[in-house]
Amino acid sequence: MYDPNNIFARILRGELPCNKVYEDADTMAFMDIMPQSDGHVLVVTKEPAAELFDLSDAGAEAAIRTTKRVARAVRAAFSPDGISIGQFNGAAAGQTVPHVHFHIVPRYAERTLRGHGSDMQDPEILSQHAERIVAALREA
Amino acid sequence: MYDPNNIFARILRGELPCNKVYEDADTMAFMDIMPQSDGHVLVVTKEPAAELFDLSDAGAEAAIRTTKRVARAVRAAFSPDGISIGQFNGAAAGQTVPHVHFHIVPRYAERTLRGHGSDMQDPEILSQHAERIVAALREA
Repeated sequence: MYDPNNIFARILRGELPCNKVYEDADTMAFMDIMPQSDGHVLVVTKEPAAELFDLSDAGAEAAIRTTKRVARAVRAAFSPDGISIGQFNGAAAGQTVPHVHFHIVPRYAERTLRGHGSDMQDPEILSQHAERIVAALREA
Repeated sequence: MYDPNNIFARILRGELPCNKVYEDADTMAFMDIMPQSDGHVLVVTKEPAAELFDLSDAGAEAAIRTTKRVARAVRAAFSPDGISIGQFNGAAAGQTVPHVHFHIVPRYAERTLRGHGSDMQDPEILSQHAERIVAALREA
């Protein structure tokens, strides 16, 4: 059962702020406010669905297209050593917001990841990171 | 640079065996031989690409469609408490085979995950797990 008042639904409706880096007809991408590493972005579908299983094929396709596109920009902006894509279904899998989202997590060889949803990032730093990704998308 | 002799390319060409659970024109899904949990499946693209960034949009779309479809069957077959989807780009992100693949990892609340690529599963058990997923796909 989908909760239309989950935090990502409210961000999609403009009721809560976010550091947006990309938006199209089917998806939106913004900075994770508790990033596991610098450049951690979330891609959410506009289609209301709690888990991947509940999404239409078209919704899933739009999500992975945006994930690919934004991940490329994150790579260009941050030059990480690798990038993990994660999509979690159910609290047992680490899902904390019940609206489908894909994590784009840069990995840096010499740094371990921060915990998932553990520390709030400084808003000014988040804003700067978002600008770097937006600039990379513009140049792509 | 894509290595056409990576282990997944060889499985796709039928040069190496696998416990296949699903195949269509663009993708193949089979059991991870070193599962992090019971029911751990890999979805690979037939399009040759090392990382998500190198895939065409059509290839990425096919991969997520198959991932969604097979993940639903894994859920039906194993009734896990959650399912993680993971797609790793670069050794620093945990990628061990240089051909795009999506991990479908069932999560069980009372059990921690085994390490990624740490222990070989008994071939007979893998075969039984594959059969359960194939049966669930048939009933879907």
